[in-house]
Amino acid sequence: MEPDFTALDAYLSETDTDGYLVHADSEESDQYYLSGFDAPDPYITLYNGEVHLFLFRSLEYGRAKKQARAATVERGSDYDFESLLAEHDPDEARARVLEAFLSEHGVESVATPPKFPLQTADQLREQGVDVTADNSSVITEIRAKKADEEVEHIREAQRANEAAMARAEELIGTANVDDEGRLRQDGELLTSERVTEEIEMTLLEHGCGLDETIVACGSDAADPHDRGSGPLRAGESIIVDIFPQNKQSKYHADMTRTFCHGEPGDTIREWYDLTQEAKAAALAAVEPGATGQEVHAAVCEVYEEAGEPTLRSNPTTETGFIHSTGHGLGLDVHEQPSVAPSGDTLEPGHVITIEPGLYDPEVGGVRIEDFVVVTEDGYENLVEYDEQLVVGK
Amino acid sequence: MEPDFTALDAYLSETDTDGYLVHADSEESDQYYLSGFDAPDPYITLYNGEVHLFLFRSLEYGRAKKQARAATVERGSDYDFESLLAEHDPDEARARVLEAFLSEHGVESVATPPKFPLQTADQLREQGVDVTADNSSVITEIRAKKADEEVEHIREAQRANEAAMARAEELIGTANVDDEGRLRQDGELLTSERVTEEIEMTLLEHGCGLDETIVACGSDAADPHDRGSGPLRAGESIIVDIFPQNKQSKYHADMTRTFCHGEPGDTIREWYDLTQEAKAAALAAVEPGATGQEVHAAVCEVYEEAGEPTLRSNPTTETGFIHSTGHGLGLDVHEQPSVAPSGDTLEPGHVITIEPGLYDPEVGGVRIEDFVVVTEDGYENLVEYDEQLVVGK
Repeated sequence: MEPDFTALDAYLSETDTDGYLVHADSEESDQYYLSGFDAPDPYITLYNGEVHLFLFRSLEYGRAKKQARAATVERGSDYDFESLLAEHDPDEARARVLEAFLSEHGVESVATPPKFPLQTADQLREQGVDVTADNSSVITEIRAKKADEEVEHIREAQRANEAAMARAEELIGTANVDDEGRLRQDGELLTSERVTEEIEMTLLEHGCGLDETIVACGSDAADPHDRGSGPLRAGESIIVDIFPQNKQSKYHADMTRTFCHGEPGDTIREWYDLTQEAKAAALAAVEPGATGQEVHAAVCEVYEEAGEPTLRSNPTTETGFIHSTGHGLGLDVHEQPSVAPSGDTLEPGHVITIEPGLYDPEVGGVRIEDFVVVTEDGYENLVEYDEQLVVGK
Repeated sequence: MEPDFTALDAYLSETDTDGYLVHADSEESDQYYLSGFDAPDPYITLYNGEVHLFLFRSLEYGRAKKQARAATVERGSDYDFESLLAEHDPDEARARVLEAFLSEHGVESVATPPKFPLQTADQLREQGVDVTADNSSVITEIRAKKADEEVEHIREAQRANEAAMARAEELIGTANVDDEGRLRQDGELLTSERVTEEIEMTLLEHGCGLDETIVACGSDAADPHDRGSGPLRAGESIIVDIFPQNKQSKYHADMTRTFCHGEPGDTIREWYDLTQEAKAAALAAVEPGATGQEVHAAVCEVYEEAGEPTLRSNPTTETGFIHSTGHGLGLDVHEQPSVAPSGDTLEPGHVITIEPGLYDPEVGGVRIEDFVVVTEDGYENLVEYDEQLVVGK
């Protein structure tokens, strides 16, 4: 894919800056997106109308020349790094070689992502380079708008996600319930850990890796970031939130369903209906030109009208709707644009999650999450997976 | 575990700095080690003799209070973040609330990890806080020395690694060879991808996650960071490098073996013997007080005496021994200390890999990697896995 860096050119021109500089490994998505190169150790990418890669060491040099989307690939030995190391301490040598690289490309001032390493910035400043953190995160903004090819990558990750969710639903739905109300499969306790393992196996079979998976039951589910542990129980809500990354493309999917083996209490059922209503209200608000703030407000309206606390009605509440409505999804599982009180204007190509939920340690938690791509005239929901609270009996 | 922060106290005292400040998510191991808190979104940790956590938003507040190793956990609402957001742009509001948090803890000057985000640093400076990147990476240095409990975590990750390596060796060893010299299992081509999937399944079953796995055959194996792809072939070297992370403890293992299904060529066999010799020479040099540089030099000696190029004898060589001898291993798969030309003194508790190798696209690659913990009187090798080049016939 050839990203469109027009906005980056405009940013450099408006801020009268010679180049955009990234110093990170490719886990940092701005780096991967700008360089097209995947490497586990930090490297330098400069954009000044063209992409230039710089590696202090030679190890990745051959691979970078083959794989990076770069006009040039250079390395320390092109700038006498070894002699500089002999003369100066390693930090100073690195700063000098980096300044020489920038100078070779006619660059005396650089903008950087907000997360640019402070050490590198201050060292470059000492060498006379003008370094400014780009608070607008222009590369993050550019990659928030997905090309068709990127949407296809996200769709592919979602097919894996749906297979994994089906496996989780099957395990929960077909479980037996023991005398203490705990779920069992093949006689063994069905735990969060067991369901997580089966989810992750399924994702691997479908070419996806993942960092974390949430399978949280009862009071665990009341903490939106609790990954869950221990036996799953009948009659309690079980939140399953899966956010795999396709290993090849590096794009993510992100979907949540809430299940209950057998009959839930009245509150969970009410919360489930309300959350479906909140999700529908959010989706109805999604269109180009709407803001993430408006979409988030639509969710708050539904919950507040039903008397549920939200962070909007009470900024310190620890129960009710205690997170944002959603976030962008792409190379990062959390990226721009935000669907939150601070959420900006939605544009075609934005891929966002819509994930309202309610939480209370006394009751449990409910969350339902789809994600959509904003289109010219509305949105397309990229999730093809039913919503069914009660599974098994 | 209660880490020993004596060296951090000494650093602050020597540099006359009020506190040490980290702004990162827990993927950043300095953050996880200092805070004891695991969260996917960035948060603030301040150390000023005690650990203080600060969260801009409330989502993780309850979990942080339960899990973090912190004297206090505070959040934006404790410092009127919402009113500041109403008055200022979000960046300014964040800087002001952060300055207020530091001020509340009597902190006017901070040191930070080298990777501290430039944006946060410059914003704090504008608020009058003195911010300096700690080029000595004191937290990284502290966590390089492992407590017994951490060594046990690494051992546990290694048991998973050995099970996964055994699965890879079995798949390669029991394969059939087709007319074109390609390996087959159950009639299907045995590819890098297939072996990788089986390795990763095995790791998941053993409680480990992972980012990448290398199963590289022939010319792929000649690039130390190539993950490998496509059919595996008889008579060619296959490098299998696995570096899992235990999901619970977050500690890593890292081991490499080189296999050949059937007879390798003379060069691969010679390289294998030489690499075993280089590894033995490196291990013989490991003891407290020795430097990473000396251990690395021991490997270079063996290769250079045999006439193989190294980066020491030729800094721009793209064949031969083209990487460092090893690296520290712990919460990060690559951490301090380095076993390389710049490698410092080894101390008891350091866990380091020893992974010499030789590479040439015309021949393939050979690498053998163990890892050891430096002890009071030498080292203990934490790898219990045979070295056998030829598997299958």
